[in-house]
Amino acid sequence: MTQTTIGVGLVGYAFMGRVHSQAWRNVAAFFDLPVTPVMAALSGRSLSAATDAAARMGWAAVETDWKELVNRDDVQIVDICTPGDSHAEIAIAALQAGKHVICEKPLANTVAEAEAMVAAAAASQGRSMVAFNYRRVPAVALAQRMVAAGELGQIRHVRAQYLQDWIVDPDFPLVWRLQKDKAGSGALGDIGAHIIDTAQFVTGQTIVGVSALTETFVKERPLASASSGLGGSRTSEKGAVTVDDAALFIGRMSAGALASFEATRFATGRKNALRLEINGSLGSLAFDFEAMNELWVSSGDSGFRRVLVTEPDHPYVGAWWPPGHGLGYEHTFTHEIKDFLEAVGTGSDPSPSFADGLRVQRVLAAVEESAASGSYKEIA
Amino acid sequence: MTQTTIGVGLVGYAFMGRVHSQAWRNVAAFFDLPVTPVMAALSGRSLSAATDAAARMGWAAVETDWKELVNRDDVQIVDICTPGDSHAEIAIAALQAGKHVICEKPLANTVAEAEAMVAAAAASQGRSMVAFNYRRVPAVALAQRMVAAGELGQIRHVRAQYLQDWIVDPDFPLVWRLQKDKAGSGALGDIGAHIIDTAQFVTGQTIVGVSALTETFVKERPLASASSGLGGSRTSEKGAVTVDDAALFIGRMSAGALASFEATRFATGRKNALRLEINGSLGSLAFDFEAMNELWVSSGDSGFRRVLVTEPDHPYVGAWWPPGHGLGYEHTFTHEIKDFLEAVGTGSDPSPSFADGLRVQRVLAAVEESAASGSYKEIA
Amino acid sequence: MTQTTIGVGLVGYAFMGRVHSQAWRNVAAFFDLPVTPVMAALSGRSLSAATDAAARMGWAAVETDWKELVNRDDVQIVDICTPGDSHAEIAIAALQAGKHVICEKPLANTVAEAEAMVAAAAASQGRSMVAFNYRRVPAVALAQRMVAAGELGQIRHVRAQYLQDWIVDPDFPLVWRLQKDKAGSGALGDIGAHIIDTAQFVTGQTIVGVSALTETFVKERPLASASSGLGGSRTSEKGAVTVDDAALFIGRMSAGALASFEATRFATGRKNALRLEINGSLGSLAFDFEAMNELWVSSGDSGFRRVLVTEPDHPYVGAWWPPGHGLGYEHTFTHEIKDFLEAVGTGSDPSPSFADGLRVQRVLAAVEESAASGSYKEIA
Amino acid sequence: MTQTTIGVGLVGYAFMGRVHSQAWRNVAAFFDLPVTPVMAALSGRSLSAATDAAARMGWAAVETDWKELVNRDDVQIVDICTPGDSHAEIAIAALQAGKHVICEKPLANTVAEAEAMVAAAAASQGRSMVAFNYRRVPAVALAQRMVAAGELGQIRHVRAQYLQDWIVDPDFPLVWRLQKDKAGSGALGDIGAHIIDTAQFVTGQTIVGVSALTETFVKERPLASASSGLGGSRTSEKGAVTVDDAALFIGRMSAGALASFEATRFATGRKNALRLEINGSLGSLAFDFEAMNELWVSSGDSGFRRVLVTEPDHPYVGAWWPPGHGLGYEHTFTHEIKDFLEAVGTGSDPSPSFADGLRVQRVLAAVEESAASGSYKEIA
Repeated sequence: MTQTTIGVGLVGYAFMGRVHSQAWRNVAAFFDLPVTPVMAALSGRSLSAATDAAARMGWAAVETDWKELVNRDDVQIVDICTPGDSHAEIAIAALQAGKHVICEKPLANTVAEAEAMVAAAAASQGRSMVAFNYRRVPAVALAQRMVAAGELGQIRHVRAQYLQDWIVDPDFPLVWRLQKDKAGSGALGDIGAHIIDTAQFVTGQTIVGVSALTETFVKERPLASASSGLGGSRTSEKGAVTVDDAALFIGRMSAGALASFEATRFATGRKNALRLEINGSLGSLAFDFEAMNELWVSSGDSGFRRVLVTEPDHPYVGAWWPPGHGLGYEHTFTHEIKDFLEAVGTGSDPSPSFADGLRVQRVLAAVEESAASGSYKEIA
Repeated sequence: MTQTTIGVGLVGYAFMGRVHSQAWRNVAAFFDLPVTPVMAALSGRSLSAATDAAARMGWAAVETDWKELVNRDDVQIVDICTPGDSHAEIAIAALQAGKHVICEKPLANTVAEAEAMVAAAAASQGRSMVAFNYRRVPAVALAQRMVAAGELGQIRHVRAQYLQDWIVDPDFPLVWRLQKDKAGSGALGDIGAHIIDTAQFVTGQTIVGVSALTETFVKERPLASASSGLGGSRTSEKGAVTVDDAALFIGRMSAGALASFEATRFATGRKNALRLEINGSLGSLAFDFEAMNELWVSSGDSGFRRVLVTEPDHPYVGAWWPPGHGLGYEHTFTHEIKDFLEAVGTGSDPSPSFADGLRVQRVLAAVEESAASGSYKEIA
Repeated sequence: MTQTTIGVGLVGYAFMGRVHSQAWRNVAAFFDLPVTPVMAALSGRSLSAATDAAARMGWAAVETDWKELVNRDDVQIVDICTPGDSHAEIAIAALQAGKHVICEKPLANTVAEAEAMVAAAAASQGRSMVAFNYRRVPAVALAQRMVAAGELGQIRHVRAQYLQDWIVDPDFPLVWRLQKDKAGSGALGDIGAHIIDTAQFVTGQTIVGVSALTETFVKERPLASASSGLGGSRTSEKGAVTVDDAALFIGRMSAGALASFEATRFATGRKNALRLEINGSLGSLAFDFEAMNELWVSSGDSGFRRVLVTEPDHPYVGAWWPPGHGLGYEHTFTHEIKDFLEAVGTGSDPSPSFADGLRVQRVLAAVEESAASGSYKEIA
Repeated sequence: MTQTTIGVGLVGYAFMGRVHSQAWRNVAAFFDLPVTPVMAALSGRSLSAATDAAARMGWAAVETDWKELVNRDDVQIVDICTPGDSHAEIAIAALQAGKHVICEKPLANTVAEAEAMVAAAAASQGRSMVAFNYRRVPAVALAQRMVAAGELGQIRHVRAQYLQDWIVDPDFPLVWRLQKDKAGSGALGDIGAHIIDTAQFVTGQTIVGVSALTETFVKERPLASASSGLGGSRTSEKGAVTVDDAALFIGRMSAGALASFEATRFATGRKNALRLEINGSLGSLAFDFEAMNELWVSSGDSGFRRVLVTEPDHPYVGAWWPPGHGLGYEHTFTHEIKDFLEAVGTGSDPSPSFADGLRVQRVLAAVEESAASGSYKEIA
């Protein structure tokens, strides 16, 4: 057990805040860490709601202004779980206050914001990380390890999809994720960002150019009475959907692979299908988050093996249960927090960095530009 | 949030103790409970090891004698996670002390012990439950709900298997689970008990007779230097394996279904394949714990649907994450503890009761008798 | 191309006759054979129906009495596709006439008949084969090859099921397959015989003893107006079902494996699920005929590979199409006829022999005896 | 049985010729047809090889010049199974001779050739069809039927892939399919044409614009000693690969769906994975030819059903075997020939027509233009 503790402050306690809280509460019970997190305080605009959330999730104190939280003496880590429009402001303030920052993805709503965040990170003593949690699915981490070890040979093809269906119903309300000013973009930034990062992480290649299409199938929706969460009740009034419902793009990666990407919230029957398929000259991999404990592996002619990624020597798995006793969605965050705490505790830079987040942001921007122009867009 | 708290004491902190601890630590963050558990104390024979375990898992105090734990004033619930040979003694003592008891399965190592436990439960003010956690897999609970609602019609067939492979290697050491005096039986009691309970739970029928075969493929193994856990290092000396490696049985259920069961630790490549398939006159179900978030459902001619059991209206699921964001092994225990606390807090009897555990014990005994005699054995 | 031809006569032209015809018509286009079959004549009791069938399926002549067919000079091979009650009489007559015989399974309706057929085969110059076509599924043949090569090590477990659902509806009529005098037994002899043969073939072990249960869920059914085929229209009158609807048995195999078997026509949603799973000390195999081009292979810890059995070096496959271009049900018969013609043409005994068929018959009889007595039944 | 016969002449007897022959030989045994095909003659440049092929496959006569074949009096149907560079010449000659023509895909190597063929078809009494056999997979035909019946609602997404791996090895020789003058294009025209046609067929929408990328991963290969077939032995000399190894494109369909397409021969471990996934506002479908008897169907929230497309009321299936007894690759051609003969026999136009083939050709051309220009290309 570790002796040193480190205080954590959480900004935002909706879906992402809940799952981050779960990770902070449990990480030290399973992993040996250089520093032990203390759940110091949570901030939220409504005092009563924030107090309830803090009590349920195990946070010791409450702030109603994130600026107060960032400046608390007992907070050394700021965990940002708000919509994308506030990421830059909060993260920069926290970094300037010398805090370590872990920030939900996408890093920001624009490339400019992301650049400012990278600059702030470079200027600060604090460590920073963007929370692409799907890197910490054991099967995805195992995929990365296999590619890095050369087991797939030269990567030829990447096929990445993130398919959901939660807004197929045209009467689903206009929640914040469907508003450009809050979310930056739609399926593209919310789930497209994940497959961009995951594809780049697993292959070790960056996307160097894209041709894209985007579409908003349902142009207006009932106004939601509440602005956060996936759901929310609706009113009879309607408002414009200002983000994409779906984004498709094809592109080239830095070492010559061809890649295709699709992010959509209109894939009826697909609930959270983050799917990745990679073909190399020696072998192939396939993954679907809907069966997150499985990685499908082909070594040439031998067919695809369904590897149950629950063996002690698989990434992160040894800390948990015996083989065949699977993990769930929340554990990807536990792993993320574990890696972040290791980096903070040992004085190294966590990964993915804000610079990695900026890289994804540039791809998002290129997709929007290509979709608008109809032309292939190179990424600097 | 609940105001009333209730103290919990844990006996045994190996594999089962760890996962129970995880459930106690998290249950109140996700479920609204009539009583909030407080992790009061853990007992273990080695003070230093128990102290380490308590610190890591979040238990406030430590006892080196379970009798002390049972009698602590701040302990109202005793959670028994020891091998089967001590279940009866601990549970009876706890019940006689007026405590509520949750006891790992199988309930005991013999029918006689189980009968004594049932008697003690009947005589006590304490509530009691046997911890068949697989009932609390959302997919299994959904299966039970569908059968109970008549969606499958009259049940004709049950096919239940629990397949593992952790002792295929003949040099795997002679851990306590391979010794009859500690474990009672081998694959039969350890994992066979789970499929017996699960099959009875889902169908609502009891097993009324069996024909059985058992086998010990590897007759002796290296002595283990440590006696707990699934693993353990080995020595050059060998000892006799005194339990079954595998048990197969077929039988009849109370409402006329035919059933087959197989429990084995020699199914190379199967890690934790608790599989259940049920055929009724109107439909069928299939489940495999290695893909625990999926239930396969057939409604006659329509083929099997892969239902991702992550929808808000599925059992237990609404407390967790959005659709498609799956749960893991540990959550079955969180659900179990939640149901136990609800029963305790509202003054009702939890399910499965010790009487349910005794029913399973009688099936285990009948299997052993049938395997010895070669004859069909009816179960009283 | 071969120069020598050999005349074939077919007895029975319902389901089995159709698929055998398809095999005779096509086998020489894909396989190099020592003798080329000529579809000489078909026999059936109704001249007009038999004439129609012959024209459609490509048979040159028609007989209305199988005895005439057996004695035709242009018929050297007699192919028996009738219900089981006539197998012995036709096969013995054909063998006594010096003809080669291929006979549908089960070999006969009783052990005594099967013994007489084996004796007739021994006394004849004709070659004989029992038509267990599932041995000729490429994936099953590949499984046998892998086990024989020792790739699975010592076989510990066999799990065999043959699941159908075509009589779940209690109003399905009383076709000949549900009448003991014609079919011998129900699911047991019809589809149970296939999994017995397949399990023995793949493992190279025989079944040496069984404990069994059988059941007839629907005791009487509408009389069918037609007596052949799977279907048939129904009348308002009812008659007794005199065979089993389902048969379950567990047993021991000659080299120590434990085995379980289940044959049922009441597995709602399973259409033709001949499933086989084998666990050895070094690896495992799994197969389901509903995905007949796939064999799942585990080599210890590596997970199960889905081998698409369409590679040129897989059994029988090289004669057909490129990898990934699957075969269908009918091709198992083409392979069977090819092996039969090779044996006949080269003067060797085909496999499975009538003696193999008798071995299966003894298991079927032991299952019925064990189901009646409730005791384990050894097989001589 | 039909009384009228119609003579067929086959041009080309390699892979495609073999499977077409199989269809001609068997179609009348399973389907009631207005005309019965007679396998009149086959043409091939080598007399001895063509004679051998004709004998094996069942063709009555041989020609060494396709022009002779086209003009035979006993040939009313010309079946073109040659590489794409000769399609136009042969088809136009046959149509001008008043013959019916079935021509392998892609219809031609250029849009100009395809236009000439469409014009010839319009000017002729002969009926014409392009052989996109995957439309005749029962599961694909069922998918089309479901979409046409509105069961999926408004189609939002199409995801189509055709993945093979037969040239991953850089030493695989330079067969004709890798030469632009013979094949027209590479993966694009060979297998990309199939997914274009299949996607358009199933959705009832045409592709109206594309953005594309193509790549040749292996720029030169050993010269093959034989120029036809998938394989062929190699020499030490090398030649340039003049076609694409892979083609990716995204596009818009005529009723607003977004679509992505990928055709590659570098998807290691994928043998013949023609995959199609369609999402509509009410439901979704998924198909993979490697499991060709299965169609996965989602009706909104209910998960995906694995429909075994072997029921009597499924397209084409009633002619074959009982439920659960699957079909293979070759049967897609039997169905195609059956539909062609029905059209010819009843005096109607078969589908897909040469005009449909031209439509696919225009998409192929647009893909190549977009890949060259980097811009979205609309399709007239």
